[in-house]
This record gives sequence, structure tokens and C-alpha cells, in this order.
Amino acid sequence: MNFRLTILGSASALPVVGKYPTACVLDVHEQFFLIDAGEGVQKQLIRYGIPLHKLNNIFITHLHGDHLFGLFGLVSTLGLTGREHPLHIYAPAPLERIMDSMDPLFSDMPYPIEYHTVDTERCEPIFENKAMTVTAIPLSHRVPACGYLFREKIPPLNVSKDAITELSLTLEEICAAKNGLDIIRDGKTIPNERIAYRPYEPRSFAFCSDTAYSETVVDAVHGVDLLYHEATFASTEAERAERTGHSTARQAATVASQAGAERLVIGHFSSRYKDNHEMLVQEAREVFPETYPGEQGCVFEIKAKCVRH
Amino acid sequence: MNFRLTILGSASALPVVGKYPTACVLDVHEQFFLIDAGEGVQKQLIRYGIPLHKLNNIFITHLHGDHLFGLFGLVSTLGLTGREHPLHIYAPAPLERIMDSMDPLFSDMPYPIEYHTVDTERCEPIFENKAMTVTAIPLSHRVPACGYLFREKIPPLNVSKDAITELSLTLEEICAAKNGLDIIRDGKTIPNERIAYRPYEPRSFAFCSDTAYSETVVDAVHGVDLLYHEATFASTEAERAERTGHSTARQAATVASQAGAERLVIGHFSSRYKDNHEMLVQEAREVFPETYPGEQGCVFEIKAKCVRH
Repeated sequence: MNFRLTILGSASALPVVGKYPTACVLDVHEQFFLIDAGEGVQKQLIRYGIPLHKLNNIFITHLHGDHLFGLFGLVSTLGLTGREHPLHIYAPAPLERIMDSMDPLFSDMPYPIEYHTVDTERCEPIFENKAMTVTAIPLSHRVPACGYLFREKIPPLNVSKDAITELSLTLEEICAAKNGLDIIRDGKTIPNERIAYRPYEPRSFAFCSDTAYSETVVDAVHGVDLLYHEATFASTEAERAERTGHSTARQAATVASQAGAERLVIGHFSSRYKDNHEMLVQEAREVFPETYPGEQGCVFEIKAKCVRH
Repeated sequence: MNFRLTILGSASALPVVGKYPTACVLDVHEQFFLIDAGEGVQKQLIRYGIPLHKLNNIFITHLHGDHLFGLFGLVSTLGLTGREHPLHIYAPAPLERIMDSMDPLFSDMPYPIEYHTVDTERCEPIFENKAMTVTAIPLSHRVPACGYLFREKIPPLNVSKDAITELSLTLEEICAAKNGLDIIRDGKTIPNERIAYRPYEPRSFAFCSDTAYSETVVDAVHGVDLLYHEATFASTEAERAERTGHSTARQAATVASQAGAERLVIGHFSSRYKDNHEMLVQEAREVFPETYPGEQGCVFEIKAKCVRH
């Protein structure tokens, strides 16, 4: 039951040889969710072994090229490799119109694309499946932009094997326990929590790029296990960060700290820092020690925490 | 006075880690002409040291993603790096409409783009400057496509320094000689070819991808110094080549041979051959020995041939 983030790229808009712009993929129970699609993302997916046929949902944060220009090649390649099942793309307007205008380039696609226009002004659920939900988070950038919060649903109760043996539970009693009910035997109550347990705590990940420091973000990602927050600049460039709708490493760390996040991954590094992202990490760690650099190829696993009683 | 081709990418549509799709750049007298713009082309331009501010003309052969999807990132980066002078893009329709629909992505471009729609049905000149012309060549592909023939103009005459000294030529006589005139002295004629010469033979390069074998191409590239012709497949895949509007290595070599080209560069290699392009080169060399693989990073120099009399 994976809950695992793989960073595909963390560069910002200006191209850097050997670096890829923003994209990452979240593996939730072996279903893969692509978040942003900077130029070259299709190669990065292949490089890091992401199975393309299990990629059914793509979330775009905003319509800036360094988050988007890899989408066209990926969409095209999925067609060339024989995909037939639908691809869902969640993005602010007007992505659908742009893709429609590129119709001559995608005229022989063997699979349908379903577009879901995301309202970047409201925190609202936009996706749900058996295992998880995705909520859009308004970001504060130069153009309409939203982050995405991925949250596992509370898993169904399991019944302890020990309890089944020890108490010789019947099938009916097991079913009742799975549904959260106590067991009544000879007028005595065996409380549900003695025999049933949640196999794990629901896990969560939030992706917030590109954005200036925002209290809306702090509120929206409260208690998140893993927060990806952009840190385009060091604090020495705070004025530039504000002017361009970006964050400093210190601001990213402040969001993580105020939100009570467990871990922070920073990325979307300005090309001025080249490979010296350690300096940004150090700046963030002064505020939030559990900060890690989101270098391409890095994997951040969120392990299931057991909650057996 | 460079006339030099640099291959930026030679992969075809399916992505291969470490390889870039079709793009190359021709340096004619230190002006750079980009031909096709597969995904990642902006990084390849930087990697191979092409000065972006000297890139003023881009030629797109056809609207398939592996020849085009790098254009958007490049156009965007040129804006981010402060370009103000116009960029000219030559391409079949409807590229301009596609770019227009992407306006939200390019809204704050500080430079103008001028689109030139190329008729893919006719051999006709589409560009001219002081040093050279570019002619579009109809290709035979699944979608409207054209190749491009770059040809230096006949350079102005130079006057031999030896002749100037030996004959004590006056300024007027030098000017006359530069204009191709004979010199008349004391009723005697000194023929122009004794004192003036062409500094070099005009050089030429043709880029033909993607295309099936085509006699139109043979005629259009007659006598070219350097021919880039696609060779997506080996002859064992001749049926597939025909069906998809591509060429085999043997067909590329046949075009070079029939056209009397001096050298042939093959590219647009199918992903099935991975790094084994040598096999395609060998196949081509059976027909046209002066065949070379167009691997990314390769430079093909066309040296100026002196024609001093």
C-alpha cells in the first residue's frame, strides 16, 4: 500500500542543462498521479520506472510553461504506445481550449482525454476514488494557480487474528466487528477496539508550487505528512520572490511549521543556485528542521503508521 | 565564414532516455538557423553553445510533436532572457493558430514573433538575406511537410593582392574588377579573371525529414553539398516505412546518390535501433559511401572551396 512521491524535476523556468522543470508523481496504492508536467516529463517518467499505463490522472497547477510544456509530448506518447483508456487532466482554464487548438497534432489519438477545469479560487475536492481524495488549494501566484492535497481515506477496520482465535469469533461477529460494532456475548460486551483496528492512519501529501507565502495554504495543508512547497529563492532575494509570486526557503519552512507538517520538501529552485540547493535547505531548516531538497529522482516514502489497539 | 550543421537531436517520435528528437542548427556566417524543434531543444542549444541571441529564424518541417514540442519552451525562454528583436518562424499551417491559442502562456513576451506559413506543395524560395536563400521542398509524409534547402549566394568577387601590386591597379580599376569588368590599358585588355576571383563556391545544405522516398526531393536537392535525409528504418522494415511515410536507410542513400550530393547525414532513427545506428549507416553506405550518422552533438562542417583562378 504505497504512498510515495518521486520527484521528476525541480528546476524553475530558465533551462538548466541536466535539470528538468517541475513535475512529480505520487504513487498511491500503485496508482500514479502526475503533478505538473515540465518539458521532458515523459522521459523522466520512463527514467524512473513509472508505468505509463497506470497513469490515469494528471494535475496541472497553473499555465506556466515550466509546469506544462511536457504535457503535449506525454499525451502524444501515450497514444503512440497504444493507450485506449481515458486520461483525466485537472488544470485551471484555459488548458482545454489550448489542447483543442492543437487538435491537428493529436488527431489520431486512440484514447479519450477528459478535462476537468479547476477553480483556483476555492479549496474544494476535485477527485475521489476508493482509496483517496484530492482537494484543490488556491495558491498566490502571478496567474491563477492551485496546489493539490492528496489524502488517503480512513481505511476499513481489520479484525485481529489473535482475537478471532482467542474468542472463536463467528463469521457474523467478525463482520460486525469490521463494521465497528461491539460484540455481545452472554450479556457481556466485548468492545470493538479490543478486536478490531485500523490497519494504518490515513496519509497525506500536499503540493504547493508556484506560490508566495499564503495563510490559505497554511490552513489547507494543516497536519499534512509531507508538504512540497516551492522555495525558488533564498531570503536574500525576498523582494524578488514577492514581486514574482514566489517563496523563499524560509517562507516555505514557515508554512510547514505553521501547518504542523511532518516533513517538508522544497523545490522549484531558481537557476541561479545551480546545484547549490543545500544553502536553501539550510535556510529552511533553521525554521523547520525536517526539510529535504526535492532533487530529481528523489523518492519520499510515507510509511503506513499502524494504529493497532 | 562558417557553413556548419550541428545535430541537436535525431530520435523519432517514441521517447528514448538520453536521446533528443529531431532538431538541428545551421550556422551560416555566424547567423544560426534552427530546423525543427523537438522536445528539449532549448537545452540542446545551450548544451552545444549556440548563442540564442543570434537565432532569428526557425524552420519547422511539419506539425508532428517530435519536430515541434520544444518550440514552446524555447519561445518562452527567449522572452525570459530579455529578447526584444523579432523571431521569425517558418512552418506549415496551422502553427500560427496553435501559437495564438497559447496566448495566455506567452502574454508577457517582450519580443514579436512573425509567422510565415509555408506552402508544402511547392518548391519555392521563402527566405533571403545578404548571404543566402532558403527554399521549401515538398516532402512526402502522412501530413503536410516540407524540407528546406539552404544555399549560399554567389559571393562578390575579390581582387587579388598580387595583381594589385604587380599591375599597380588604381582604386577605379579595383572597383571595376570587383564588378567583373576587364581592365583596358593602352588599348590592351587585362581580362577580369586574371585579377579577380570568387573567394569560395556557394555552399548548400538540405534538410529532408520526415519523408518517404521522393523524386521531387531528388530534383530539388540536386548537387547539394550536404544532405540530411531521414532514415527512420532499415530495409527490413520497408513496408512499415512506406505505410508511415518514412524512408529506409537505403532509400535515403538512393536520394543522395541520384541527386549527386556530396555527403549524406541520416537521422530520425526509430527507437527500435537504440544506439545501433551503425547498421543503418552500413546499409546506406552500400548505395552511397559518404553517409554519416546524425548523432546528437555531431558537427558537419562544409568548408569553403576556393575557386581562385
